[in-house]
Order: sequence, then C-alpha cells, then structure tokens
Amino acid sequence: MFSGAQISLYPMSDDYVGIILDAITALDPWRANLRIETDDISTLIVGPPEILFPAMRDLFVAAARTGVHCTMHVTASRGCPGEPDDPICVPGDTLAPDTPLQDRIAHARTAVADAQTTGQTIAAQFSLYPLGLGHHMDEIYGCIEFLKASGTFETSKNFCTKLRGDAGPVFETLSRAFTSFGAQAGHVALDVTVSANSPSAV
Amino acid sequence: MFSGAQISLYPMSDDYVGIILDAITALDPWRANLRIETDDISTLIVGPPEILFPAMRDLFVAAARTGVHCTMHVTASRGCPGEPDDPICVPGDTLAPDTPLQDRIAHARTAVADAQTTGQTIAAQFSLYPLGLGHHMDEIYGCIEFLKASGTFETSKNFCTKLRGDAGPVFETLSRAFTSFGAQAGHVALDVTVSANSPSAV
Repeated sequence: MFSGAQISLYPMSDDYVGIILDAITALDPWRANLRIETDDISTLIVGPPEILFPAMRDLFVAAARTGVHCTMHVTASRGCPGEPDDPICVPGDTLAPDTPLQDRIAHARTAVADAQTTGQTIAAQFSLYPLGLGHHMDEIYGCIEFLKASGTFETSKNFCTKLRGDAGPVFETLSRAFTSFGAQAGHVALDVTVSANSPSAV
Repeated sequence: MFSGAQISLYPMSDDYVGIILDAITALDPWRANLRIETDDISTLIVGPPEILFPAMRDLFVAAARTGVHCTMHVTASRGCPGEPDDPICVPGDTLAPDTPLQDRIAHARTAVADAQTTGQTIAAQFSLYPLGLGHHMDEIYGCIEFLKASGTFETSKNFCTKLRGDAGPVFETLSRAFTSFGAQAGHVALDVTVSANSPSAV
C-alpha cells in the first residue's frame, strides 16, 4: 500500500521563508523513514502513517512556537489504486482485517488518550474521504462517533469536523481517523487544515 | 442538492489581516447569491457551483494583486448525503442526467476555452473525490483526460493534479472538474490549493 501526504506550511509573516526553513529542521529525525519531494505548492512526504503524522506534528509545532499565526494544509492518501506499492510505506501498527467498526473506534480512542502532549495548542479541521465504497457514509459516521469522544472534538461544520487541543493528541486523532476508517486496505484520503496563533480564535 | 466550500485565504505578510479584509470586498457582487459564515479556520460559502468558483476567483485575485505571496485552500462539496437540500444551491447550468463521460469531457473543455481571463497568473493543485461509487477511479481518470487538454494542466503529482495559468481559466477548470465528474446528483468533494507570487515558482 502507498501512503503519504502533500503538505504546505503557511506562516502569516514577512519572514515566512525563514520560518519555513527553520521549521523544516524538525523533520530531520524522521527523514530516514520518509521520501520527501518539494515544489512551489507543496512538499510530498511518503511513508507509513505512524511516521507521517508525528513528522507533520513536529514540523507544525516548530513553526507555531515562533508565535506567528501559522497554518498548514495536508492532503493525505493511502491505498490509491493509481499509486504503486512502496516498501517505505509498510505500516508498523495495523488492525486485523475486518475489525468491527466499534472495535476500531475503541482502539482509536485509546491511542488518542495515550498521546504525548507538546505544550502547543492548535485548532484543526478535516474531511475524511473513504473512496470506492457504496456505504462511505457509515465509515464517516463511525469516524464522527470516535471524534466526539476523542477529547479533541470542538464542533461539526459543513463538510468537515473541527478539533482543538494540544498538538500531540490532535495529530494522533488525525492519524487514527486516517487509518481506522474506510476499507482497511482500501483508498482513503484526508483533507486537513491546522492553525495556531490565530487572532480570530476564541 | 447542497453545494458549497470552506475557504481559507493565506497572505504571507505581517499585514495579512489587512490584505484579507481588503480582498473580502471582492465577494460583494456575489453576496446576494451566497450564504457566508466565518470562524477562525475558514469561511463557509454556500451556493451553486457557477457562483462559488467565480466568487472564489475574485477573492483570490484581489489578494494576489497586492504582489504578496498568497495561497488559498478550498474544500468544496456537493451532494453530501449528510447535508440538507438548500434552495440557494440550485445550479443554473447542468448537464442532462447520464451524459456519457466523453461528452462531459468535451463540454468541460469548451467551458474552459471560453473562460474570461483576469491578467493574474496562478498555480493550483487539487484532488477530486467522487464518493459512494465502486468505480470512482473511472471518473478520476476521465477528469484527468479533461485536465490534460484543458490548457491549464501543468503536471500530475502524487494524490493531485497541478494546474497553472490565468486565474480565469484555472478556476473554470476547477469548477468543471467539480460539476462534470462523479455521479451527477451524487456526493463529490474537491480539495484545492491555489498559489500566487511564490518565490519558489519556476
């Protein structure tokens, strides 16, 4: 299975280039387990989900700690039939095939409860797209059931769900949404926006 | 059918608040045909596709004309089974039900060729998610066939397709991807990033 993400970091500052270049050093501990390619719109990171989300967390927290209003957009995908398998993507932590929805929800909640905190509060919103299924809304509603008791849930919005909390559990919530819902070896995409230091935040 | 988008505008400048507030006035001519709600992460605009995409184009072009590196993220959705029908969303320009894929591709290409230009060059990348279908990749490959001859195609990337050109045809390409592929009355989502004035652009 191929898994990865296109990510873009946006510091709302005249010094956005410097903030991005400094934050990218937070990816260094993860680089051996990722394949990384950059162009003028986004950076592709390819690797297993349990590396992708902590790497994205560390990148975003490094930028947010400047105190500047920063956002990051992530398009994450796994199991796309148009992408070749890649050995770098083999996940180290998988559920047994055909694990029932309620067990997947319980497993995901436990992982979020156990997540390490970072000291950085963030907001996030995301949409889950389980593709190639006739019953995709069942998986989406299952994911929403997980989110509502995750401890990071803030509100439901049109087309997405909004989270708020420490970056540790919030990124763990995103990781578990990505891996626990939709067909287990199937095609799932996630459209994520994270935000820190917004002057509009409540 | 419900249709709309969550949009977020990111000017990479210390004056991002001023640039956003100025750019928002570009939505004024469209407001009578849209429902608009804002929080600290995004602004929801609800309305028919032929209003949504020109309104987003005008908002982004207004920000890009400052010369500042600006990006915008859009999560667009139509036909979500979890959203109620809304009279404000009734489209004015629809294809006949069951229009064959090749005819939809031809119709979309003609619309892009006829799009008005704005004088503002932008880059864009997006992912199309036709939901609730077992054959979702057929619709995605059909969309890619449209894109490659659209005049706005730049390159295929992992998980998305990258466009470049004048904002007029680029936003028309996005609008046609949104309305022409996936089940015609079904659930389709689009994950879009647009960018202008990037120092990394070729």
